[in-house]
Amino acid sequence: MKSNINNNYFESDKLNHECGVLGIYDLDGEDVSSSIYYGLYGLQHRGQEGCGIAVSDTNGPLGNIKSHKGMGLMSEVFTEESLDDLCGNIGVGHVRYASGRNKTIENVQPLVIHYAKGTLCLGLNGTLLNHKELKHELAYTGAIFQTSIDTEIIAYVIARERLKAKSIEEAVKNTMKKIVGAYSIVMMSPRKLIGIRDPYGVHPLVIGKRDNTYIIASETSALDAIGAEIIRDVEPGEIVSIDKDGIHSDRSLVQEKKARCIFEYIYFARADSKIDDVSVYNSRIMAGKLLAKSHPVDADLVIGVPDSGKAAAVGYAQESGIPYGTAFIKNSYVGRTFIKPKQSMRETSVRIKLNVLKEMVEGKRIVMIDDSIVRGTTSGIIVKALKDAGATEVHVRISSPPFLHPCYYGTDVPSGDQLIAHNNSIEEIRQIIGADSLGYLAIEDLSAIIDGQTGYCDACFTGNYPIEQTKDMK
Amino acid sequence: MKSNINNNYFESDKLNHECGVLGIYDLDGEDVSSSIYYGLYGLQHRGQEGCGIAVSDTNGPLGNIKSHKGMGLMSEVFTEESLDDLCGNIGVGHVRYASGRNKTIENVQPLVIHYAKGTLCLGLNGTLLNHKELKHELAYTGAIFQTSIDTEIIAYVIARERLKAKSIEEAVKNTMKKIVGAYSIVMMSPRKLIGIRDPYGVHPLVIGKRDNTYIIASETSALDAIGAEIIRDVEPGEIVSIDKDGIHSDRSLVQEKKARCIFEYIYFARADSKIDDVSVYNSRIMAGKLLAKSHPVDADLVIGVPDSGKAAAVGYAQESGIPYGTAFIKNSYVGRTFIKPKQSMRETSVRIKLNVLKEMVEGKRIVMIDDSIVRGTTSGIIVKALKDAGATEVHVRISSPPFLHPCYYGTDVPSGDQLIAHNNSIEEIRQIIGADSLGYLAIEDLSAIIDGQTGYCDACFTGNYPIEQTKDMK
Amino acid sequence: MKSNINNNYFESDKLNHECGVLGIYDLDGEDVSSSIYYGLYGLQHRGQEGCGIAVSDTNGPLGNIKSHKGMGLMSEVFTEESLDDLCGNIGVGHVRYASGRNKTIENVQPLVIHYAKGTLCLGLNGTLLNHKELKHELAYTGAIFQTSIDTEIIAYVIARERLKAKSIEEAVKNTMKKIVGAYSIVMMSPRKLIGIRDPYGVHPLVIGKRDNTYIIASETSALDAIGAEIIRDVEPGEIVSIDKDGIHSDRSLVQEKKARCIFEYIYFARADSKIDDVSVYNSRIMAGKLLAKSHPVDADLVIGVPDSGKAAAVGYAQESGIPYGTAFIKNSYVGRTFIKPKQSMRETSVRIKLNVLKEMVEGKRIVMIDDSIVRGTTSGIIVKALKDAGATEVHVRISSPPFLHPCYYGTDVPSGDQLIAHNNSIEEIRQIIGADSLGYLAIEDLSAIIDGQTGYCDACFTGNYPIEQTKDMK
Amino acid sequence: MKSNINNNYFESDKLNHECGVLGIYDLDGEDVSSSIYYGLYGLQHRGQEGCGIAVSDTNGPLGNIKSHKGMGLMSEVFTEESLDDLCGNIGVGHVRYASGRNKTIENVQPLVIHYAKGTLCLGLNGTLLNHKELKHELAYTGAIFQTSIDTEIIAYVIARERLKAKSIEEAVKNTMKKIVGAYSIVMMSPRKLIGIRDPYGVHPLVIGKRDNTYIIASETSALDAIGAEIIRDVEPGEIVSIDKDGIHSDRSLVQEKKARCIFEYIYFARADSKIDDVSVYNSRIMAGKLLAKSHPVDADLVIGVPDSGKAAAVGYAQESGIPYGTAFIKNSYVGRTFIKPKQSMRETSVRIKLNVLKEMVEGKRIVMIDDSIVRGTTSGIIVKALKDAGATEVHVRISSPPFLHPCYYGTDVPSGDQLIAHNNSIEEIRQIIGADSLGYLAIEDLSAIIDGQTGYCDACFTGNYPIEQTKDMK
Repeated sequence: MKSNINNNYFESDKLNHECGVLGIYDLDGEDVSSSIYYGLYGLQHRGQEGCGIAVSDTNGPLGNIKSHKGMGLMSEVFTEESLDDLCGNIGVGHVRYASGRNKTIENVQPLVIHYAKGTLCLGLNGTLLNHKELKHELAYTGAIFQTSIDTEIIAYVIARERLKAKSIEEAVKNTMKKIVGAYSIVMMSPRKLIGIRDPYGVHPLVIGKRDNTYIIASETSALDAIGAEIIRDVEPGEIVSIDKDGIHSDRSLVQEKKARCIFEYIYFARADSKIDDVSVYNSRIMAGKLLAKSHPVDADLVIGVPDSGKAAAVGYAQESGIPYGTAFIKNSYVGRTFIKPKQSMRETSVRIKLNVLKEMVEGKRIVMIDDSIVRGTTSGIIVKALKDAGATEVHVRISSPPFLHPCYYGTDVPSGDQLIAHNNSIEEIRQIIGADSLGYLAIEDLSAIIDGQTGYCDACFTGNYPIEQTKDMK
Repeated sequence: MKSNINNNYFESDKLNHECGVLGIYDLDGEDVSSSIYYGLYGLQHRGQEGCGIAVSDTNGPLGNIKSHKGMGLMSEVFTEESLDDLCGNIGVGHVRYASGRNKTIENVQPLVIHYAKGTLCLGLNGTLLNHKELKHELAYTGAIFQTSIDTEIIAYVIARERLKAKSIEEAVKNTMKKIVGAYSIVMMSPRKLIGIRDPYGVHPLVIGKRDNTYIIASETSALDAIGAEIIRDVEPGEIVSIDKDGIHSDRSLVQEKKARCIFEYIYFARADSKIDDVSVYNSRIMAGKLLAKSHPVDADLVIGVPDSGKAAAVGYAQESGIPYGTAFIKNSYVGRTFIKPKQSMRETSVRIKLNVLKEMVEGKRIVMIDDSIVRGTTSGIIVKALKDAGATEVHVRISSPPFLHPCYYGTDVPSGDQLIAHNNSIEEIRQIIGADSLGYLAIEDLSAIIDGQTGYCDACFTGNYPIEQTKDMK
Repeated sequence: MKSNINNNYFESDKLNHECGVLGIYDLDGEDVSSSIYYGLYGLQHRGQEGCGIAVSDTNGPLGNIKSHKGMGLMSEVFTEESLDDLCGNIGVGHVRYASGRNKTIENVQPLVIHYAKGTLCLGLNGTLLNHKELKHELAYTGAIFQTSIDTEIIAYVIARERLKAKSIEEAVKNTMKKIVGAYSIVMMSPRKLIGIRDPYGVHPLVIGKRDNTYIIASETSALDAIGAEIIRDVEPGEIVSIDKDGIHSDRSLVQEKKARCIFEYIYFARADSKIDDVSVYNSRIMAGKLLAKSHPVDADLVIGVPDSGKAAAVGYAQESGIPYGTAFIKNSYVGRTFIKPKQSMRETSVRIKLNVLKEMVEGKRIVMIDDSIVRGTTSGIIVKALKDAGATEVHVRISSPPFLHPCYYGTDVPSGDQLIAHNNSIEEIRQIIGADSLGYLAIEDLSAIIDGQTGYCDACFTGNYPIEQTKDMK
Repeated sequence: MKSNINNNYFESDKLNHECGVLGIYDLDGEDVSSSIYYGLYGLQHRGQEGCGIAVSDTNGPLGNIKSHKGMGLMSEVFTEESLDDLCGNIGVGHVRYASGRNKTIENVQPLVIHYAKGTLCLGLNGTLLNHKELKHELAYTGAIFQTSIDTEIIAYVIARERLKAKSIEEAVKNTMKKIVGAYSIVMMSPRKLIGIRDPYGVHPLVIGKRDNTYIIASETSALDAIGAEIIRDVEPGEIVSIDKDGIHSDRSLVQEKKARCIFEYIYFARADSKIDDVSVYNSRIMAGKLLAKSHPVDADLVIGVPDSGKAAAVGYAQESGIPYGTAFIKNSYVGRTFIKPKQSMRETSVRIKLNVLKEMVEGKRIVMIDDSIVRGTTSGIIVKALKDAGATEVHVRISSPPFLHPCYYGTDVPSGDQLIAHNNSIEEIRQIIGADSLGYLAIEDLSAIIDGQTGYCDACFTGNYPIEQTKDMK
């Protein structure tokens, strides 16, 4: 058992989303760039390190794509001026999470390419499992690479398949037969908006509509931001193509086996989104209820760690009858450019970001709900803050099972030895974080949080990886 | 009755805080600039349009003040580099709200002046009622003005009084006898940190301590951000002076009559602050409870409009027994640089900032708690959004009485004819905002929300202005 | 005859250089990024719209290239911080001129690519004549393009040739057999710095050395900036490769026929550069002397239009015996971000940039030397300014023949109908610009300005295009 | 004798100008901000560290002044947007040189103040000799200071005098009786543009006109930039006031004794300016001629160190008969943001900024003219560069006498012990800089360079300070 509570943990103890995609096509020919702009605000929680918009005019000259991209948040990258320069009635937007040496402007999406049959513009949420193999094959048949993103590999395969295919849709289908991985992609060709979702449907993708404008987006929160209605989710394995005649669908790659990421419901997605017909909010409420059943405790107050723990806390309260309350004030001004305290300082980032409401917790036995524990450090700081504020007991309940295995499908669940649950028993974790009791959601309860549906991926908890292994991974 | 629901109302239908002040003096001689930086994050809700820090060294040469100021948020104005340049063990920080033509860099505080007896550095939260009279008198005895802030007037009076006084404290006291208004001020002379609060105590000011470091701040949220303990509030009319020997106090201007702003509790202050020994959070819970008693309704769910309506909603739920829930998802990425939708657009700022959780409200009778209605427009948009999401009834409860009169004491409650309650009956307001019922907190209940204390200002609701009129106001 | 003197002409009536390239390899393993930085300052006159530096470590892991690029001048793109991030003992730098829709960040060089055999980093000065044909062929064998620069095409061809070749040098040679055009390229592979010049040698390229550090650069001005010695020019058609063992050369593509751009001497290159063993300054002095012989005039003062007309003016003065003087003060603060006067304004950009020294010209007969007249407008403004200042006569002498034909080799000599000399006789031009006489350098005199050498390109004056036509051009 | 040649000397071995001022009043009511903008470009050589513009409308409400100021060059501080915000038909502009701790935004001018009688806006070129005394007196009668510039002191005195005076002009005159120093000031009251020049006329100030628009500026180069005609210089001691009825003048403070800075002609002013009816360019030509007479030498080429040494070089050449030539190429891209080489580097700032034209100097005996030697370092680097390039002899001629005494009148001639000529004989200086001979202009020749006029200040050469000493200086 090894304690690793430190000052900076709050930053690093949440998983990061892995990109959001958005495509809009206005059949009436109106400009879509500002709708993409507002829609991306509805996806910003999926990626804060880069963003971009590319638009074109379906009635204009071929290949005339205007784009603007940059490192940082939407509010940092786009100005009224840069937005005004982007005119066109079809477009793709992207928000990006990136790590390490991939944090360069070259890697910001959407990726715009010119090829034999015109132009393509792609935004990807996901990751390929056979990218090394594909890259090797492409390189040895004369490809050069200017980025380190899988989007470029996919663009290459599509471009090459397009040389042999009758249509862009056929090229996309043939590409899907070659690439292995978890991917939701929105792309535009000069006259079409296309959305695809890998056959396992790991990441979400949904279709919306507002008047005569079609939208394909990672989450329904993007549709709500622009006042569009949900039509339906893109089916795992489906190719959706929107042209001037409306929506077309190719379901020939749809397969039985699905592996939709269960952690989208637990943490990644916005609480007001609906994924594959299940409300994210309801799934969190249910997780809280199930926790209350499996890990009941005698207490005075149920609280949630902002923001994602709050809905589960409401569920726990409803089931247990223990009152729900708000015990934290989150400082919304602490952002990307916040200067972090040095180790020697008395101030901690956590304390500045998240202050405890003493009045709420003083003298009380607290049930504190969080969505997950990754490395295990912030939890300890928060438990201590609650006790400092006068809580007599702090019972921690986690609305997901313990993380034991890395994720290869486009989220950043780290490798096993960085996961606190991989190295410690639950009792040890309890001691490390200083809780009076600790309970996790049971693996058996996962299905219940999504209305009893099956076909989800729980590999990070169980190690049962649904997608076949590739040479890359061996 | 005139409806004035429009697209931009959400921005303009909340009052703006009127500055936050913070002073720190480390008697052990350690650097205070980063503590001021983190502390100002704890006050950022009091002003987002400008901020600054000025520091000095109590053991260094006289008058050697380093300062950095700018327009915008802390995160926009300060970089690691600009913070590193500010070395000193005594300093003053300020966050500023400003309107109209006062939005210029000259007006950003703290104000640093050089005068016959050295230097002074001041940060003000508040406003003078006799500023015209004072300015006239100063000008006709040879003063020139480089800003349009009252801080400059106060600095002038102090500087002139100091010529006749034995100490800076005496000069400050004589100044307080001349200035009329609502003011909380933190200032530093080369060797002293001084905090004053007008005799009515309109705005808050609190003293804190961490080891051998003293802090004077607008709210306790600044103390929490830097891990300091509350010592006590500065008493209305008190002059607190901190030098190398510790705290000194002059209470000779303390008077019977107080007029502490009740709206700090209802909306301005951060929920986790404590003002004059009353928890802001508790006062909001109590307001909700009182509303439940005075305006009960048969309903399925109590919700609060983020962020300030939430605590009152919890109180309403507790009292009424109707379940509390979260019905809104707030988009925390929509900030100062958000490009607002044009009127012609379908998207509204409100919708992008605040999305309704359909699952929570569908088919339900809702009690929606908000802290106030100023001009009356956002409320209508939110009520409509709830009904669009399937709420069968929306009962609006406001945790303050109707605004009927302007505020002259440093907040921006507008003049009567812009206040919806000034022009419309409660029934008319209900119709304008489309609510099924509407209830306000009763004026008689105000005292109860602050533990039955008296000596508060409720002029914006009652028109009973506590501070004597000045020539300026006639 | 059509006059087209207007206010903005000064900006547009000079040709623009077409990029500068620079590569440095320090065999001792020391960092080269700051030397590239200073060297690019010595090439900034060749391109002001974008610049970049990419470096690598010949002893480090393969493919680990760090780069920083941006739109604008060196002083705008590079900061101490961005420069410090670039560590490595081998690197390539580029300054770029770009026009129209190519002005995007994607097109800024050097271009960094990853391919089957590792990485390549290229900077190009020049243009391909068969780029359409090559692009078509590449695209139909599976290439995708992310930029609109010829550098990307060249990189593709090299990458594909490399798959079949034994060495990068062989791949480069095979590439040179396929590409047609005017190009000087500096590139780096993980362990080698390579410089090539097209077989016609249209654009300059020179090798330098400082201690154990090798430099390949567009002009010797880059060598001077970093204190390096000239070794020799890269020969037209030569492939120079520098590795840890020093310089290697492959001259197998060297051909008899050369076509070195004569306008580099007249205007493009910096006066202190030496190209193919001929001093640019001396060539300009000679052009002035030849003008004095072919177009003598009785006058009081010879002046040069800054900056490129000055050396020729000195030559004219030396030959004619008429005193040389400075008649203009150039405002060096007027740069890229200068806000241009609106048409309605009395101020002109020319007047603000270039003021006439009245004392020098008053009452005098002036010989004014300029390097060229492209569209013909600025000349008229300057002649008028001289007359306004009291010049009694202004005799204009141009140190090049009239522009009659567009350039296809990488400079921006416009198409014929925009060239004043294409549409007007010399007498008509004289009238348009308001000169008392006008004389151009004779085509026959061009050889004399480069020491009687032959093998230069004068197509813009004569229409004799030296490089074979490609399908693209038909 | 102590050598102090170092790498950074070039930056520090030129004196800095001390601000430029500009005021414009368009009697026809047209906007003047863009004319001030272009005019300030014509004064940018007088100050590069800060600039600002303030404008008002003589027909608008009193006291409504719009201003924009910032640190840096005009091109860095002003954008099209910031310029568009400045509307008004009367305005003042300023470019500033500043050093040390005065480099703060507070100190950037013009200074805008509000006082009993309205508003004033001032720009100052110069310095007060009794500023301490005045500041003390002001402070002890109740003044507070927010800047460290003398402009604020002057504004205070004017504001206070104005309380007793019948007009702003009378207040200004009474102020001039109190302040001692060297000052040229342009100021605007709500309805008047006023220019004053101290009775010694140390710094220049000139009146211009264009149609119905009046201009008061530091130099005629500002008038040329905007196409205005020179009317006349402001007389030393004169108060020029421009209102809707035209120019008014008060010469009652005009005195016999003048002390116009002779170094304006030698170096500070732009060569195309005319100061007090003497052409700066002609004065430099004359200085060169006089040097040729007093310090003749047998040589092959006369060159000038850019930019200010060039005119004197032309004069030397004319007088001596030795040919004039250009031996340096100045890199105009090296600006404020240039990252200076570290000491350890082989590159020097001088080499990158100023390259020697080898062809011009090789094998030649050179006469190199510079305007001054302050600390003495750059000269040595340049002489060495010439010799490295093959010059057989380098004879240095300085177009001013040796600096021996500090300047107290607003330029930055340093104190004696930093002046190379203060510590070394001319022969020693020659050795330090490595010249073959060295000659300075004789003090007796100074009058001749300004057409034999007297009434100039040569204190930095002679120690004869023309303005009476103040208490401050004792």
